[in-house]
Amino acid sequence: MIELIQNGNVTSPLGFLAGGTYAGLKAPGDEVLDLGILISESQASIAATFTTNNVPSPSVVLSKERAVSDTVIGVIANSGSANCCVGSQGYEDAKEMSALAGGHLSVNPEDMLVCSTGVIGVELPMALIRQNIGNIKATSDGGHDFAKAIMTTDTRSKELAISFDVGGKKVTIGGAAKGAGMIHPNMATMLAFITTDASVGKAFLQKSLSESVGQSFNMIDIDNDQSTNDTVLALSNGKSGTDEIDENSPYSNIFKEGLTYVCVELAKEIVRDAEGAQRMMEVTVDGAVSVEDAAKAAREISTSMLVKTMLHGGDPNWGRLMMAIGKSGIKIKESKIDIYINEIQIVHEGQTISFFKDAVVSAMNASEVKFGISLNVGDASATAWGCDLTEEYVVFNSAYST
Amino acid sequence: MIELIQNGNVTSPLGFLAGGTYAGLKAPGDEVLDLGILISESQASIAATFTTNNVPSPSVVLSKERAVSDTVIGVIANSGSANCCVGSQGYEDAKEMSALAGGHLSVNPEDMLVCSTGVIGVELPMALIRQNIGNIKATSDGGHDFAKAIMTTDTRSKELAISFDVGGKKVTIGGAAKGAGMIHPNMATMLAFITTDASVGKAFLQKSLSESVGQSFNMIDIDNDQSTNDTVLALSNGKSGTDEIDENSPYSNIFKEGLTYVCVELAKEIVRDAEGAQRMMEVTVDGAVSVEDAAKAAREISTSMLVKTMLHGGDPNWGRLMMAIGKSGIKIKESKIDIYINEIQIVHEGQTISFFKDAVVSAMNASEVKFGISLNVGDASATAWGCDLTEEYVVFNSAYST
Repeated sequence: MIELIQNGNVTSPLGFLAGGTYAGLKAPGDEVLDLGILISESQASIAATFTTNNVPSPSVVLSKERAVSDTVIGVIANSGSANCCVGSQGYEDAKEMSALAGGHLSVNPEDMLVCSTGVIGVELPMALIRQNIGNIKATSDGGHDFAKAIMTTDTRSKELAISFDVGGKKVTIGGAAKGAGMIHPNMATMLAFITTDASVGKAFLQKSLSESVGQSFNMIDIDNDQSTNDTVLALSNGKSGTDEIDENSPYSNIFKEGLTYVCVELAKEIVRDAEGAQRMMEVTVDGAVSVEDAAKAAREISTSMLVKTMLHGGDPNWGRLMMAIGKSGIKIKESKIDIYINEIQIVHEGQTISFFKDAVVSAMNASEVKFGISLNVGDASATAWGCDLTEEYVVFNSAYST
Repeated sequence: MIELIQNGNVTSPLGFLAGGTYAGLKAPGDEVLDLGILISESQASIAATFTTNNVPSPSVVLSKERAVSDTVIGVIANSGSANCCVGSQGYEDAKEMSALAGGHLSVNPEDMLVCSTGVIGVELPMALIRQNIGNIKATSDGGHDFAKAIMTTDTRSKELAISFDVGGKKVTIGGAAKGAGMIHPNMATMLAFITTDASVGKAFLQKSLSESVGQSFNMIDIDNDQSTNDTVLALSNGKSGTDEIDENSPYSNIFKEGLTYVCVELAKEIVRDAEGAQRMMEVTVDGAVSVEDAAKAAREISTSMLVKTMLHGGDPNWGRLMMAIGKSGIKIKESKIDIYINEIQIVHEGQTISFFKDAVVSAMNASEVKFGISLNVGDASATAWGCDLTEEYVVFNSAYST
């Protein structure tokens, strides 16, 4: 039984401290938080997934190297600069950021990961980081400040925490994320931080995280582009005092379920807060021959510009859904496909049925629209989330950045 | 030496006849041409490429079956309905269209291909086609009418013809295409028809067409979606009276060059006339380890929503080009990448150089913008074309269709 914690965040699990400060990295004079630290009181198991973009930020490169360890202490994160496409200086700066954090917190710099998000192609203003890092107070109620410090074009912070019972003891999982809204061009990064006081070793934590990310962050789309800095980190410090949870534990399923819940909620929040977006779509494809096929079709639909514009217009233009399914290349039989919009069936066996158009248009006039596709050729299903494409998106992303 | 023919079109090559009529398939009362026929006076070698979408129009299915023959006589094409997602009726209707055309022209219906473009999910109004097909007069100067009859949301017809010398005789290649502009939602199809009086057998014609399409229609992008009806047909009837041109002919290269020229020009016209588009981009990637890599990166750039919006804003936001290159997954070395915008270098060895921003912004304030990417890791290159993403695109494609 998973319970949602009110105002929960990354410091809701026991033994995690966080904080943020204004260092002037984003807009000078804005006094918004732009430098944050999240640490565990003691060594925590680390699991992570990183962008597969071949032009990664040196902050990603450094964190990837260090995340190979079984345990780390925490992470320092900045917004304002992605620390990307800046040559060899980027790696030096990422290392110095971790050294400054280590010095300030009296921890081993090698146990600190580094995350950066912001404009590509400008160097980190290290002088500002050196001057201001000392102002960060890492406290057990600093999770909200940390979530604010990693925001770029997000209009609100994205955070939550849940708890569940493990052998009579409460285990908590907290999370914070930032989205890929891009009002200011080039500020494109998805970062997510998950903390838990569960006792989980690196191997099971990584396996669980990879599965959860596959069903959440990897199933959302805003504009089909992939950041140079995308990172999801999970830290587990065992402070809940339970027995270790691994593959064979009776609590392995509830842990994976909780972790997936946190990842899905954060992922959906990123979509809801996507730049320019007015509507979210949840695309569920079932009856596929494999989960891979179902996921491929669901993503093809959620990323299609023609589907995104029809969502924006509140238009039950099902031919575009068929087009996207066909384009995905998965195994289908056209004459078996059924399509539902907010649970109203509009296509039966590949052909339109005489649905009441006004009812469907009305059903699409919602902040969240569900597209259901039944392929009826197998038993596998998958869900993806996306947002509408709006005039605002075009206007925001056409503005000068340089 | 390739020469452009003034006002050239699909009936410029010897022995081709075409025409169109108003049948009421698009907007009743509009009196625009919507049903067209293109035939050769005698059997013509046929080569074709079709959509790979798994939900193809039955018109595509029928044409694909018939294009297996060495020769055909011609094609009947309609706009207004894509004849797609209409169940088994679609195949019956496509067959009847070819039978009606065969009867009208006194040719074997099996020698007629069928192309449809327009709304997905509505049946062809066969009664209107039966009533009006008799009005089509196929003449040797009807190429322009044919080009108009296949238009949907295109704002202008797309046609040209070129000629070159083969052993002292003039050989002509003509072409007509329609684009994937989608002012009226769901009307998404690229159709192209190439005619030539060259004497070319099926095998060499198909090989040449596939190569030309790979460098032209397959390298353009408007919105990353793929129609259920995309078709390119090439007909060669030998009326120029030259020796046969095949792989070993001294004229094989000039023929391929001419065919590619026609395909590239039609493809670029489709991009220029894309719905809502105000600017075209030409993306050339050189110094790649393979043509496949170069093409992949060029297409990744030309299809990126963030690149399309930066093109719209006239913004030299090079981080987005780096992002797209990295995302493409091809072999690169970040520290070797050079980037040029309209021949002004802005990135050297993976890092920005201090370019005069106003000059680059000014260079981008053009109807056609060239992005040049030198990867400097090999010798292969490729070019792709795309258009900007505009508010108009969103507005047009958000409108009700149903």
